[in-house]
Amino acid sequence: MERSSTGIALIGSGRMGSFHGETVSRRLPGAHLAAVADPAPGAAAALAGSLGADRAYTDTADVWADPAVAAVVIAAPARFHADLVVAAARSGKAVFCEKPMALTLADADRAVDAARAAGVPLQIGFNRRFAPDWAAARALFANDRIGTPRLIRSLTRDPGGFDPARVPPDTIFRETLIHDFDTLRFLNPGAAAVEVYAVADALVEPGWRDRGLLDTAVVTVRFDNGAIGVAEACFEASYGYDVRGEVLGSRGMATMGDGRRTGMTYSGAGGRLIETARGDQELFAGAYTAELAAFVESVRAGRPSDPESHRTAASGEDARAALAIALAAAESVRAGRPVAVGK
Amino acid sequence: MERSSTGIALIGSGRMGSFHGETVSRRLPGAHLAAVADPAPGAAAALAGSLGADRAYTDTADVWADPAVAAVVIAAPARFHADLVVAAARSGKAVFCEKPMALTLADADRAVDAARAAGVPLQIGFNRRFAPDWAAARALFANDRIGTPRLIRSLTRDPGGFDPARVPPDTIFRETLIHDFDTLRFLNPGAAAVEVYAVADALVEPGWRDRGLLDTAVVTVRFDNGAIGVAEACFEASYGYDVRGEVLGSRGMATMGDGRRTGMTYSGAGGRLIETARGDQELFAGAYTAELAAFVESVRAGRPSDPESHRTAASGEDARAALAIALAAAESVRAGRPVAVGK
Amino acid sequence: MERSSTGIALIGSGRMGSFHGETVSRRLPGAHLAAVADPAPGAAAALAGSLGADRAYTDTADVWADPAVAAVVIAAPARFHADLVVAAARSGKAVFCEKPMALTLADADRAVDAARAAGVPLQIGFNRRFAPDWAAARALFANDRIGTPRLIRSLTRDPGGFDPARVPPDTIFRETLIHDFDTLRFLNPGAAAVEVYAVADALVEPGWRDRGLLDTAVVTVRFDNGAIGVAEACFEASYGYDVRGEVLGSRGMATMGDGRRTGMTYSGAGGRLIETARGDQELFAGAYTAELAAFVESVRAGRPSDPESHRTAASGEDARAALAIALAAAESVRAGRPVAVGK
Amino acid sequence: MERSSTGIALIGSGRMGSFHGETVSRRLPGAHLAAVADPAPGAAAALAGSLGADRAYTDTADVWADPAVAAVVIAAPARFHADLVVAAARSGKAVFCEKPMALTLADADRAVDAARAAGVPLQIGFNRRFAPDWAAARALFANDRIGTPRLIRSLTRDPGGFDPARVPPDTIFRETLIHDFDTLRFLNPGAAAVEVYAVADALVEPGWRDRGLLDTAVVTVRFDNGAIGVAEACFEASYGYDVRGEVLGSRGMATMGDGRRTGMTYSGAGGRLIETARGDQELFAGAYTAELAAFVESVRAGRPSDPESHRTAASGEDARAALAIALAAAESVRAGRPVAVGK
Repeated sequence: MERSSTGIALIGSGRMGSFHGETVSRRLPGAHLAAVADPAPGAAAALAGSLGADRAYTDTADVWADPAVAAVVIAAPARFHADLVVAAARSGKAVFCEKPMALTLADADRAVDAARAAGVPLQIGFNRRFAPDWAAARALFANDRIGTPRLIRSLTRDPGGFDPARVPPDTIFRETLIHDFDTLRFLNPGAAAVEVYAVADALVEPGWRDRGLLDTAVVTVRFDNGAIGVAEACFEASYGYDVRGEVLGSRGMATMGDGRRTGMTYSGAGGRLIETARGDQELFAGAYTAELAAFVESVRAGRPSDPESHRTAASGEDARAALAIALAAAESVRAGRPVAVGK
Repeated sequence: MERSSTGIALIGSGRMGSFHGETVSRRLPGAHLAAVADPAPGAAAALAGSLGADRAYTDTADVWADPAVAAVVIAAPARFHADLVVAAARSGKAVFCEKPMALTLADADRAVDAARAAGVPLQIGFNRRFAPDWAAARALFANDRIGTPRLIRSLTRDPGGFDPARVPPDTIFRETLIHDFDTLRFLNPGAAAVEVYAVADALVEPGWRDRGLLDTAVVTVRFDNGAIGVAEACFEASYGYDVRGEVLGSRGMATMGDGRRTGMTYSGAGGRLIETARGDQELFAGAYTAELAAFVESVRAGRPSDPESHRTAASGEDARAALAIALAAAESVRAGRPVAVGK
Repeated sequence: MERSSTGIALIGSGRMGSFHGETVSRRLPGAHLAAVADPAPGAAAALAGSLGADRAYTDTADVWADPAVAAVVIAAPARFHADLVVAAARSGKAVFCEKPMALTLADADRAVDAARAAGVPLQIGFNRRFAPDWAAARALFANDRIGTPRLIRSLTRDPGGFDPARVPPDTIFRETLIHDFDTLRFLNPGAAAVEVYAVADALVEPGWRDRGLLDTAVVTVRFDNGAIGVAEACFEASYGYDVRGEVLGSRGMATMGDGRRTGMTYSGAGGRLIETARGDQELFAGAYTAELAAFVESVRAGRPSDPESHRTAASGEDARAALAIALAAAESVRAGRPVAVGK
Repeated sequence: MERSSTGIALIGSGRMGSFHGETVSRRLPGAHLAAVADPAPGAAAALAGSLGADRAYTDTADVWADPAVAAVVIAAPARFHADLVVAAARSGKAVFCEKPMALTLADADRAVDAARAAGVPLQIGFNRRFAPDWAAARALFANDRIGTPRLIRSLTRDPGGFDPARVPPDTIFRETLIHDFDTLRFLNPGAAAVEVYAVADALVEPGWRDRGLLDTAVVTVRFDNGAIGVAEACFEASYGYDVRGEVLGSRGMATMGDGRRTGMTYSGAGGRLIETARGDQELFAGAYTAELAAFVESVRAGRPSDPESHRTAASGEDARAALAIALAAAESVRAGRPVAVGK
């Protein structure tokens, strides 16, 4: 028998919200877009109309009260994430929250506690865990093909074109590199970050350096098993969107990410040319669908957040651990020295 | 508003039928599996049950009569394809038919004529057209990046493990290489094949050579624009399933297909290791979904088969043209000389 | 102790002659350029001067008589090759001859017989055997990593810019594809070609088709062990000089050749860009040196041509076997049918 | 006319000395091995015999006095390098010195000053500058394809098998990573390193951690043009010897190094397999020859060390600058904080 469809409410109708909404309504059999919520007048209604969502709300209280909503996808601005997770969990909704789940460790704790208390699934949008290269690398640990990790690397480069006036301080750590911090942890299963040293600067927009913009950063992370991680980000790469990873262990190395748009190669008068991906929604299209499919599965299974299992999906605890690294990195830049990762 | 769902009946519940059925029921929003039909007692019911199809039939007449069925996916044995296309078209159903659409040119003409007369869409399962590498290569023609094709190549290698007793003569041409013949045409838009020379042998199973088995073949195809194509197939490659293509034109070259399972690369004591795909449903998972998604779109649009447009989806006319090459190739092996492609 | 230097005479001071001369005088410790010979007035003297050769001759008889010359490198026009090999061998000189060694099987036999009778080394300039990819592929046979070859491929594409008025008939078979025919044999050790079918046309210079120009060709070669080879050539590839090979056997596949200039990859606003090689002397620089180094070694060792050993260097017998395929290919184009390879 | 041969004396007959000696005597036309010097009884004579050197010395004073020696290649233990450079320069010999040129900045200054005062060429063995990928990356700066560097990376991984008892403290910085520090500078022309932060540990041989072994390290280097460099090393990679580089600039990115032994790829039952290089003398065979060929050219040209030109060959000033980074990195590990690069 065909299984019944899971009703999902989308909270936030911006760039990521629209994309997640499209995934739910068009690429995710087994789920449907029950509602869209956004406080901006007309925004929710417009997106709900184009995606065929059942309802549009401007007040999230209506989402919490809607019995057709089994789960929420939170894609509001980052500063609202933790409160939204708490409210959604308290109303018994399963929660998928875009990264970062919170901006402080205290808020992260509140979010994790709320989901745990309510017994609802809580999954964070660390999408790379669902990208085929990263999933395949992680699977190597199961056969001991990597051994003990020694050197781990993760990098994120955006295609540029950002508005420096709209980049809050610490964005590069809390919103960009937090992906890489999670990847370092994903490629070093069971280990905990202990100390961080970060170097960051305004190299893309040097004129904004005095206003505190940080658009390029390198972060060294020491783990309690000795492994040394390096996370690196830049807000502008001329060639597009670029995400790569690598783990060197005592038995072998895995490398991930090549940024190609397809496997087709063109050779012409100028040499050999390979088209590169120009954005996250292109490079990680499959991963974005896969992470929501996994979320829908956990909603159907009624599984709450389980911090112990080393499953692919990122838990609230994973989000908190990545945030702790991000906060230490930001502090390291301010202090100009290595900083211990907060407990 | 959410668009209504297109009811699709699956005809044939074997390996490809099951896979297409799964795609329709689980990976294809906008469509649902309205029915499964298979003459084998219990086969349709079993697959319908596991996939949540609404109905199961043993007689295709019930499919033709079912008003909930707007379109059919034909995945029965090849010898029934043409008759099924004709019957489905006459009952007004849109038709997606696995390759080969027919085994003779006369049957191919019947199928094409029936779809045209009924004004229903007719799409053939040449899935590579929907694989990203191949689609990207074809797109290069639009910008004149390739120029006039001179040398074109397409190859298919299966991972082996076939039962030689179950391989009818000409299978390698009519069921395997027909993909490559279509690819040669896809990479040489607007040109027609004029002459074929084929060499084929039983190299995987030499003991079956005397019984007419052909498991390895190389086919040279001359086109009316001068381009020379080479299609190559082998039923066993130790490393898995391998499909590649290449077109060299006056302005540039495109190469397609690398057979990797993912972009992850492992380096260990034995060197660098890359996992290779082990089957078509793995290597072309996305293409199989994309071709059915395109079919559903054409059903919704009510577009009939349009042989003139150089769209991605393969038409009945495309299927006939590939079949003509396959038949000439088989004849070339028997005659030991080049053979003109039938009109 | 430093070993004494081998005196080499260069015969022919054209494009390949100059390059081989440079290799001998500048990149080949253990040998020196004892003489340059060319009938064109002043040509030998000019090249000898720039390369520091000891002597310049316009008459090859002077080379044969020169006691300082232990070995010759023949890089004269192809129609003189066989006579030069015979004369050099008779005078007791070791012989390195550019491909093709001869233009008829009778001439090939004369050349081979002369070297054998004189007991001098005879090596032919099939340089790919010394390119790292090809040598590594061949080495796989020693460990049975390939198994029995089934499908073999070799292609050569030149960067274009040729003068159609100066391309004699059959050039594509006797001077270009003869490399690929040798490669097919190199990748199918111990097997003999039995039948050839060739398709060829003037696709780069269609205006010269009526004058018999063949600038693009595909040749299917059947071997006595069942393996099917495909050799392909085109006189113009927009992206440069391209040589690739592949052998699929019962146990595994080897692929050779990627045409990159270096391993450096550039990514910029236009995507990812890889520089491609623009000529044979660039792509095979190392192989050209390695083949002459091997020749010098055989001169020092005093080993005559040994057709039995499956060594890397191509013997006169190898050259004859490749020529037999080339002649059959040319005949196949004229006859429009498969042609048996001459004994 | 053939140019006269440059007489070179090799100082040190260990692993690198033997290899450089072989290069001089067998792969470097235009030069010959005039002498080998080594204080160990019999060592110089043995190597001189096998390589055909003219003379063997146990006392370097004999080298300085030998008029047949125009240049020296210093491959003695690192702690003797600076004194040997000074003595060789004072006796008017051109100097090629293996890295590191010195172990202290004062010694580096002495060496540079001696070469400058004597007006002799001084070249340091930073071989990657002569490897094709790195040279091609550097060439991109000439056309402004890179723009202003933002993120630079260089890594070195050895294949393991070292004896921890024989690894002095700071070896990873002064003998291994010094290559990478030079590469960071080579990929950031004209910029100077200002601050370094290093993390290092005994991860390959944890049992030796207490004795001060450092076998794995990550070093962050800030440059005065804002660029951030990361140098990384590990003394053991299961898959072999691995050297890679990358520079991301405002206009584009170059990546270098893929560690393949050849371009041949094998596909078999285990997937796709690529042989990896197992040592520096294999991976950088061509670069080792090219750097000595460049040195011989500078000896012939009589050019002294020119620190201003951004030529490929590394000068004494380049060696000093890389040493300053290495010393700061070692200090950073001891102090647990970022350290300014010494002037």
